[in-house]
Order: sequence, then C-alpha cells, then structure tokens
Amino acid sequence: MLTSDGVKAIRASLGKYPAFDKAFYELKNSADKALTKQIVVPVPKDAGGGYTHEKHKSNYYEMNAAGMMYQLTGESKYANFVRNMLMEYAKLYPALGLHPAGGTDTPGKLFWQALNDCVWLVNVANAYDCVYNYMNETDRAFIEQHLFYPMADFISNGNPANYAVFNKMHNHGTWAIAAVGMIGYAMGNKDLVEKALYGSKKDGQTGFIKQLDMLFSPDGYYTEGPYYQRYALSPFMTFAQAIQNQQPELTIFQFRDSILLKAVNALIQCAYNGKLFELNDALPKTYQTPEIISAIDIAYSINHNDRELLDIARQQNDFIVSNAGLTTAKAMYTEKIPSLKLHSCLLRDGAKGDEGGISILRTGQGDKQTCLVLKATSHGLSHGHYDKLALAFYDNGHEIVSDYGAARFLNIEPKSGGNYTKENRTYATQTIAHNTVTVNEKSHFNASIKLSSQHHSDIQFCDLSNPALQVFSAVERNAYSNVSLQRTTALLNDSTVFQYPIIIDIFRVNSTEALRTIDLPFYYKGHLVSTNFNYKKSTDMLKPLGVANGYQHLWVEATGSTNNLTACFTWVNDNRFYSITTIADTATQFFMTRLGANDPSFNLRNEPCFMVRQPDTQHRTFASIIEPHGNYDLVKEVTDGYQSTVGQLQLVYDKEDFTALKITTTGGKSFLFVGVNSDFDATKKRSLLLNGETISFTGNYYLQKYKK
Amino acid sequence: MLTSDGVKAIRASLGKYPAFDKAFYELKNSADKALTKQIVVPVPKDAGGGYTHEKHKSNYYEMNAAGMMYQLTGESKYANFVRNMLMEYAKLYPALGLHPAGGTDTPGKLFWQALNDCVWLVNVANAYDCVYNYMNETDRAFIEQHLFYPMADFISNGNPANYAVFNKMHNHGTWAIAAVGMIGYAMGNKDLVEKALYGSKKDGQTGFIKQLDMLFSPDGYYTEGPYYQRYALSPFMTFAQAIQNQQPELTIFQFRDSILLKAVNALIQCAYNGKLFELNDALPKTYQTPEIISAIDIAYSINHNDRELLDIARQQNDFIVSNAGLTTAKAMYTEKIPSLKLHSCLLRDGAKGDEGGISILRTGQGDKQTCLVLKATSHGLSHGHYDKLALAFYDNGHEIVSDYGAARFLNIEPKSGGNYTKENRTYATQTIAHNTVTVNEKSHFNASIKLSSQHHSDIQFCDLSNPALQVFSAVERNAYSNVSLQRTTALLNDSTVFQYPIIIDIFRVNSTEALRTIDLPFYYKGHLVSTNFNYKKSTDMLKPLGVANGYQHLWVEATGSTNNLTACFTWVNDNRFYSITTIADTATQFFMTRLGANDPSFNLRNEPCFMVRQPDTQHRTFASIIEPHGNYDLVKEVTDGYQSTVGQLQLVYDKEDFTALKITTTGGKSFLFVGVNSDFDATKKRSLLLNGETISFTGNYYLQKYKK
Repeated sequence: MLTSDGVKAIRASLGKYPAFDKAFYELKNSADKALTKQIVVPVPKDAGGGYTHEKHKSNYYEMNAAGMMYQLTGESKYANFVRNMLMEYAKLYPALGLHPAGGTDTPGKLFWQALNDCVWLVNVANAYDCVYNYMNETDRAFIEQHLFYPMADFISNGNPANYAVFNKMHNHGTWAIAAVGMIGYAMGNKDLVEKALYGSKKDGQTGFIKQLDMLFSPDGYYTEGPYYQRYALSPFMTFAQAIQNQQPELTIFQFRDSILLKAVNALIQCAYNGKLFELNDALPKTYQTPEIISAIDIAYSINHNDRELLDIARQQNDFIVSNAGLTTAKAMYTEKIPSLKLHSCLLRDGAKGDEGGISILRTGQGDKQTCLVLKATSHGLSHGHYDKLALAFYDNGHEIVSDYGAARFLNIEPKSGGNYTKENRTYATQTIAHNTVTVNEKSHFNASIKLSSQHHSDIQFCDLSNPALQVFSAVERNAYSNVSLQRTTALLNDSTVFQYPIIIDIFRVNSTEALRTIDLPFYYKGHLVSTNFNYKKSTDMLKPLGVANGYQHLWVEATGSTNNLTACFTWVNDNRFYSITTIADTATQFFMTRLGANDPSFNLRNEPCFMVRQPDTQHRTFASIIEPHGNYDLVKEVTDGYQSTVGQLQLVYDKEDFTALKITTTGGKSFLFVGVNSDFDATKKRSLLLNGETISFTGNYYLQKYKK
Repeated sequence: MLTSDGVKAIRASLGKYPAFDKAFYELKNSADKALTKQIVVPVPKDAGGGYTHEKHKSNYYEMNAAGMMYQLTGESKYANFVRNMLMEYAKLYPALGLHPAGGTDTPGKLFWQALNDCVWLVNVANAYDCVYNYMNETDRAFIEQHLFYPMADFISNGNPANYAVFNKMHNHGTWAIAAVGMIGYAMGNKDLVEKALYGSKKDGQTGFIKQLDMLFSPDGYYTEGPYYQRYALSPFMTFAQAIQNQQPELTIFQFRDSILLKAVNALIQCAYNGKLFELNDALPKTYQTPEIISAIDIAYSINHNDRELLDIARQQNDFIVSNAGLTTAKAMYTEKIPSLKLHSCLLRDGAKGDEGGISILRTGQGDKQTCLVLKATSHGLSHGHYDKLALAFYDNGHEIVSDYGAARFLNIEPKSGGNYTKENRTYATQTIAHNTVTVNEKSHFNASIKLSSQHHSDIQFCDLSNPALQVFSAVERNAYSNVSLQRTTALLNDSTVFQYPIIIDIFRVNSTEALRTIDLPFYYKGHLVSTNFNYKKSTDMLKPLGVANGYQHLWVEATGSTNNLTACFTWVNDNRFYSITTIADTATQFFMTRLGANDPSFNLRNEPCFMVRQPDTQHRTFASIIEPHGNYDLVKEVTDGYQSTVGQLQLVYDKEDFTALKITTTGGKSFLFVGVNSDFDATKKRSLLLNGETISFTGNYYLQKYKK
C-alpha cells in the first residue's frame, strides 16, 4: 500500500496535518503495543469470537501495523517483530489441516472459514512487502515456502470449493483474489498475480478484471445493496491500489469507464445525512466506517477533480496511513472544499444495467433534504429481501417511512451469536416487512431465493430533469403468478400550495384472478396524531395479524374503515407532521400494527405501521400522497399546520394506458397528475379524454396545476 | 424592561455582537410587519387556539415589539402603532363581561382564563412604558381610565376568585402580581405597585415578596419540578427586573440570600445535556426555551461573577432585547467563558427546606456525564406525580432508566386539544409508571392529591463530598398505611473494577401486615440483550398486567423466574451495554412489559420495562446494581464487555439498624456496602458484627473494597 515516494512524503508530512497525524500515531501506538507483548501463534481451534480466532486476527493487524511503521520510521525493531511472527506462522502452517470448527463449505486453516484466511493474507502480504528488504534470503525462502505459497495454493486451489470461489463472479471471491494477488506482488511472483487478475486459467473469463466487469452495474451499483457494497468495496479498492502501485500500466482505476470510482460514488449517493440506506440485509452504517474511509482516500488520490470527496473526508476526519490517505488529508487542509451534493439519480442494477434499479429522488440540500428511494432491482444475492417496488422516505433529517433492514445484532454474542437472527428470515426479508404490496399474505416469489434470483423488476421511465417534479415508474411482473405490480412515484415541489415537497405514489395491482387480500403497509416513524377515519384500538388483548410470511410478527393494535373515498393518517416526527392520504372505499380495511409478535427472544424492534388492505378484488390501484406539513416547536411552544393540506384524492381515470389522479387541497386548489402505464416514450405525444375535456401532453407523465 | 442607559447602550452596540443583532432584528421585523397590517381588536369569543384568542396574543406581542422599537430607534411610527391599538382596547374593554368561553374558576375578559389576561398586561405594560412620553396626556388618561385601571382591578380584585389568586402562595398568582405591579410602575401608581409587592392588604402576608419567601426552597427549588420551575420563573424574573429598574433600593435580586438567582441555578442543575429532568408533569424542555434565555440574561446581568451562565448563553445563542440581554451578549463575546459545570447537589423542597428534596448525583463532566436523580419531595401541587423515591438514570449522553413525564401532546389539537390526555391521570401520574415501589398494585396515597399534599418524604442522609462514592438516602412513611419505604442509593466510581461508574440501589420495604405484591419496575431505554434467568415471552397474545392504577396500561410481554439468588437483565443503548443485577429468590417474579394497553387513542409511548415483583411478604429489600459496561461500536464492528461485571449480590445483613450488601464481581473481587437505616449521624462511630468479623466505621455508610 506504500510506495517509496509515499514513505518519504508521509515522513515529511508529520506535524502538518493533525487529522493525518492522529491516524499515523494510532497505527504507531498499535505497533508499539504489539512489540511489548510476547508473540503467540496458537494452533487454530476456536470459531468466530473465540480465543484463537481473535488472536490470529490481532496478529495480522499487528504485523500490518509494525510493517508500516518499519517503512515509516526505519526502526528495525518493527521489522524484526514481523519477521519473528512470520517465522512462527511458517513453522505452524505446514502441519495444519482444515480448521476443526469449520462447518462451512469452504473452511479455512487459520480460521473457521477460508474468507478469514484471505483477509489475513491481504494484511500480511502488505506487512511482508514492508519488511521484505529487511529480511535475509534464507528467512524469506523459509517463509514463502512453508507459509505463503501453500496458503496461496490453498486459497485458490486447495479443494474444488476453494477453486470455485476463487473463480466465481461473486464478492466472496474478491477477497481470495486480492489475497493471492497481493502476496504474489510481495513475493514478486508473476504467476500468482496473473491468476488473480485473469483467473486460474488466466483466460480472463474469471479473476479480478472479469469481476470488475460483472459485479457492478454500469452505474457502479452493487447488487446486494449499499450495506454490502460498502463491505465488498474493501478488497476491490485495496487490491486495485496494489495493482496501481505495482502495474500502473494496467490503469486499473480507469478500467470500464472508471467503474471503481463510479462504485464509490454510487455508494456515497446511497445515503441520507451520511447514513447508508438500509436496503436488504442492512444495519445502520455511516460514512465513518473504515471501508468508506479507505475508499474515499483511494478514490480522491486517483481523481483529484472529485473534490466533494474531501467534504466526506472532512466529516470522517480519519485517514488510512498510505500515500492515498496522506494525499487526501493534505488536500483537506489545503484545498477549497465544495459541499457534498447528494443529487437525484437512478442506479441501474445488473452487469449490463438492464436488471431494474434503484431510484433516488431528492430535493433540497444539506441535512434537511427530502429524499425518496424506490427499489426495483434484481434479488441481490443471498442478502436480498423479497421487496420489489419497496419505498423509503426521508425528510427533515430523519427516516420517515422506513425499511426495517436486517434483524441482527452484529457482534452481540447473546443475540444469536451476533449473526442474523431467526426473525431475519421469518420477518425482515419477507414482503410484508416492506413498504410495498403483499398479495394474499404471501411474499414475493413465495420467498424463494431461487425463483426470485431468476427475475428482476423493470424500469418503465425515469425523469429527474425537472427539480420541481421528478418521476420514476417501475413494474414487477413475476413476484406473483398472473399478477402485475406497477408503481409510479413522483416528488413534487410546489411551495405555493404545499409547505414542503410531497410524494405522489400510485401503486397498480392487476391480477387475472380474484385475490383474497392486497396489502400496502407504511412503516412510519413517529407518533400517531390523528386519522380522518374511525378506528377501534384493541385495549385489553393483542393478537397477531396472521400466521406466516411475516404476518405472524405483527400485533394488530387497531383496525378501521371509512365511508369517505379519501383516508388520511397523520403522525408527528420531531418538529414536523406527516400525513399519508390515500384513496379508499367502504371495503378498504385499515390496520395499525406493531411489530413484536412471535418473537420469543426479543429480537425485533417494536415499530408501528399503518396498513391499507383491499380484500377480494382483482384490481386495486393505491393512490397516496405522503406529505410533510406544519411545524411542532416544543421549545417555543408553537404549533401550526397539524392537518394535511390534501383534502381529496380521486382516480379520475385508471386503465391500461393511463392513470390520472386528481388531488384537491383543503384550500380548494386542484392538481391533475397523469402517469402513462404502457407504451413508454419520453417524446411521444399523448391525449386523454377526461370528463369531456382532452388532456394533451408529451412524454410519460403530466401534471396540470390549479385545475378547477 | 429598558432603561434610558440601556437604550443608549443597545443603540451603540448594533453591529458589534452578531447574536444580539439577530435578536434585535427579529424583534424589529416583528414590529415592522405589525405596522403593515390593519389594527384589529376583536370582541373576545374563542377559547385557546381560536381566532380571537390568537389575535389578542399577537396584539400584545406586536405592541411590545413596537414599543421597544420606538425606544430603540426613536421612530414615532412605532409609538403611534402602540397608541392606536391601545385606544382600540380602551374603547372595547369597559363593555366586556367575563369571557364567553371561560369555563374555569377564574375566567378572563380578553381570554378564556384570567391567567392569559395577566400575561397580556405584563407585555402591554412594558409597551405602554416605552411609549408613555410619546403620548399626550388626554390619550394617556383615556387609556388608563378605560383600560389599565379597570384591568388591574379586575385581575386583583374583580371577584373573590381573582382576589384569592392574587393573594395566593402559588405561582398562578405570580403572573397576576407581575401584571398589576408592572402597569403600576408604567402609570406611576404607587398603590398598585405596593399591592403587587406586599399583597392586597399591603401587610406583606401575601404579594411578591412573600411569594419569594414561600414558593422556593432555600436551595431555589420550586416544588412542582423543573418543567414548571422553568415556567414559573418567567413572571418572577420579569417582575423582579422591573422592580430592579424602578426601585433599585429594594435590592430585590439580593432578597433572601439571592433566592431568584439560586432558583435560576437550581433549574440549570436539574438537567442532563441541556435537557431538563422530566419529573412530574413534564415534556422535553431544553436550555433553549424562551423562559430560560430570559432567566440567564437577567441572572448574568445581576451577577457577573457567575460566568458559567455565559456558557449557557453561548449554547442558546439568543438573547432578550434589553439591558440584561445586551450585557450578557457582550460578555459572551468579550469574556473568557468557563465550561458549565453540572455538579452533584441536593435540592431541598419546601419553603423551609424541610420537606424532602431531590438528590442529583453526578460523576464526570460534559455530555457523557453519569447522573442519578432521586426524587424524595413533597407532592408538587397539581402537577405532582405519585412517585415517592423514584429514580432516573442518565449515562453516555442518554436517558437510560427514565421517568415518563407527562402524557400530553402540547399544542397538538387532535390530541386532547393539546392538554393533558386522560392517560396522564390513569398512567403517567400513577406510581407504577415510575422507577419506584408500588405495593398491592395501588399508587402512593391511593393517588389522592389531597392526601399526598399533606406529606413529604424525608431525607435520611446525603454525602456528596467524595467523588468516588456519593450516597443519598431517603424514607417515605406515609405513601401506604403501615408500610415504610426507604431507598439508599450510591454512585460508585471505581475504574479499577468497573469500566464506568455504577449505581448501588437498596430499596427496603417493611410492612406491619402481609402484602400481596411489591413491585419495583425499571423503565429502561434500549433493546434487551440477555438475562441470566429464564423467561417466557407471550408470542401469540398480549394481555394487560392489571386492571387499574396504571397496571391496565402495561402489556405483559414476558414473565420469568429464577433459581439463582442473583438476577441480571442486560440491554444495549447506543454504543454501551447496561445491566440491572438484583437480588432474587425462587418466589421473585419478573415481568417484561410494554406500555400501550387500554390506550384507545394512541396517547402513550410504547416503552419497555423490566419489573421485579415479590409476592406475599411483609418485608422485601430490593438490592440492585445498575451498571453501564462494554462497548458496542457498529461503525468499526467492535464489541466488548457485553456481560455484566457483577457476578453475585448478597444481602449479608438487613435489619433496622444496618443493611449490608456484598457485591462480588465475575472476576472474584468483592465489595461490602453498608448503609445505616436509623439513628443517622455523619460523625457517629458504628460497629457491626458480620460472620464473626466486626466492621467499624464512622458515619452513615461504609464501603469496604476487595474484601475476600
């Protein structure tokens, strides 16, 4: 990770850039602390979290820190530490069989799974590279012969499963490739490097370069979602940095229209207020995570023109100790830094960009930005959820309509060993856990990953060109047999009528046969204020909503119905009110649920939900407005606008060609929003006869304002 | 509020102190905006929130702003606005009867309750004072005769109820006194001023001076609790400022050992991270509230030595436009500002300081301080809760074991008109809503305010002198007939054994007859991680814990019991773990509850609770440790210390003289904590025979460390 120029520059920089100094001295402290302890290289025995596991982890971390410090200070004590520990590993390794606790398809030798062996080798390769010149030839030969070559061989070819991983188009292979490639560079072994770059057969059909082609979409989106994109980027960026240092002629960062830099930018855009969207299996992650710190440093060092990266570096205020880290830290102190602009974008999914995508609609800037996320992608490998066309909404600095993410307490041993809890499968991945439609209380693809992985949603149209009205439309045809799901969402910014930007959400469900139930839940964050319909809350007993597919986890707190054609549900979050106003009829049922039923170990968060159910029908178009409104200032004790501005919603037309929604405000102003349902073409002239009046427009949608 | 020197100083200051400029121009903008509108003085009709109510509110606000601006700019247009509006009021007022919407004992004329009329007059008195010299004698006479004199008379003597309020030792009278006193000063009428200061009979048995004697404890504590102390301080500080300006010879701020400044400081101490403790009827309030901004400015302008006030002013970054505001703003820019130190303290309750009190035990500084609050006061007037010896715990920047505060959505009309909801009475005020003991599922004093107001808890001892071990003990003898409740709490800071400071909590319950149930709940904030006892969670049905006294609002999520003598309950909050370890036996029952049953309108927050119940006994001593531990870093994915350090708790002695608790850590270290239960004397020598060993110490408590 270090070049000789980088070493000189880092030495010369000390004392100049406090945030970089901090990172440097943290690493130095780790190395110094390591040197005070006896070297222990235990025989592998324990699984994740156990003694030998943690010891081998800290050993690689310490070797890496000491190797770096040898380069950066020139003090031989650091190099000697690395040498001595490597000698111990070289003595141990040849006798090792597969790890005794390895219950996976791909057990490691030092660790219970080979993935950890790879991470170990990526770090130790860097350490070895740092002390290579310090060591004599005899020691090097001993270590390479007894440790590194056998290990590289084990990882890439130790058994059919390892060979498969090494050559798979999957991020699990990226760590294996990085490990083999980096130790190849450190030892000067061209064969290993070529296998890493071009696959075991060196034919380019597998290997790192092919992964760059296959694992990111043309927009830099990684199919598992932002949480795992962050994780996957780590070996990609690290190995690419090594390639850049060792074989700059490959111009790896420019490969495929700079796909790695695009991937970094795509990840940054998948966030609200510095926090990644919690799509698929996800826990809260911010820009402060080590993987993103590293990615930002490397990306900026490659492309100095992307100075908004410096704004993120400033938020992180932490750096990797390397050329890239120093370059970025120095720029943070010396360059003019523009504010990071999170903008509306469409991130297509799939290697060719033709497997649906995620739309991110934003308006406003800074920490109070309004943001709508719609997910219409492929399944997302093993961490995907069954949530086609799911929505998440952010406003005023907060998550407002939320995606649950993963049911997991990472690294908290008493909670299912820190792994995904049972409820991740029984609830969090199920469709009803998401802000999208569930039909007949069954999840999309009947929650079969095999089935779900064969399909993807399709983007119908997307127009982000007008900041006042951004529109996205997608369709899902395979989640249920003979049922089509189509969602068209718009972010409308019209401050003359609405205090804040609002969301128009039209969800069409069409089936060739009668459906028992069609459910559209909204997982809102905040406290219920009012409804315009009557509900009955269960006061002395709670029962679950259903028995399977996630429904068994929802307590029914209240049920309601209405005689109006427009239902409104209002809650308060922080200092702002929010309403969902939605089209209803007398058959429509409303549920207010709370998560937590059938959760014997308190693994679920007790979150509330407003659910709209239409029973016994073949066709249902949910048309809703999500509207922030008013002001609730508890400090100054001022409240205004606690009531929705939306008075009435009417589907004035809803057929296979168009859907037209009339929105009438309480002040009597009207909007007509028309979305095209087929024959999409942004340049096509359309006309539609509505109540004797012909509406004409060009493109895929239309908004008429202040119509009487 | 302004003096002529102040006017000159403010004029000269503009442009120098940006935060004060901001306050000035906000006020000026309000005045300028008012001048563009037609003056409307409607006939009073509507209750709170309605048109005429809000109009009369904005009218006084506008007159006050315009009056101030006349003084500060010299532009007569402002004075003319005030004059014109006052003339309209003077024409309207004589014809007014009691307000038509007044359903209270003390209806107003302009507003539905006389309290609002008083607030109106406080503000308008200031406006009139500002424009007094601008107006001609005829106009003044007309306004005084038709508006101010009748109004002052109505407020102080309009009917027996108003007379009673004006002469009552209750903060409802303070606004009336301030209104009459301030209009008296503005008109130069000594009679009104004297009545305000010394009561209607001018004998000093009532009136402002007497209120200063009676309504604050010698430590400056106001009996209703911090939320209402903030509110009550507003008329106290405003009128005192007027007195100081008009009759400096009264040295009102020095009265009773500077009781008003003490009250400001007491309020500041009743906070964690700038947020007031939510005791009694309370909603979240921060140092940013207008009442505290005003109090800080006035207090600093009186006592420049209290420079920590400037640290609060800096947080507020907002000022009142007055001499006091300018003085404070200037100092904020020019003085060296020490950090505000929130320190341990005992705030005694009662005019004489002999009606119990609140202990605040703290360790550490800044926003991660650890803080324990124990409430052992008198009832707290109409806003008190039935929560003798209740505890609240704060750590790491968060509320960890919490007081519910009020069940109210202030100013949110659809939620019970913004007033206290029904559940405030049925839940929030009841004993079981608090972290204290409930006996036989009945609230303290059977929730009778009449009964509760006749008694108060008593402080047994309090020693805050040793930062490593702070101890407080209080007793409540009247909450239940024939039952004594005693709680001794200690904040122990011993970083050689415990990573963070811990709480030792010994709650003794002794009855002369058998009790059916003794319940001690802990309302924890966070997510359950583990327990060392078995529990069974209700998976397919929830039922309430009881039928009355708050129990009807608690869903029973799980029940448990244990064969161990030590039970442990662990949860996670933000990046830290917390455990409550408590003494148990096989009869002890554990409940995990969640709030929300019998809450038909979604008025309660769904908060979780861990409850310890001892059934069928006369005596029970709950001995518990509340312990923060470990680190949960989801950014760096590092977890440690998720298990409690407390291995075993044993009550090795528990009689009427002493209670001795042995705490043994998982590492095998032991502590012996002894609390004295009677015969309190900090200088008394004690000895206690324990297992053949004599323990000797002086004072009311004792800690032996590392005892084997």
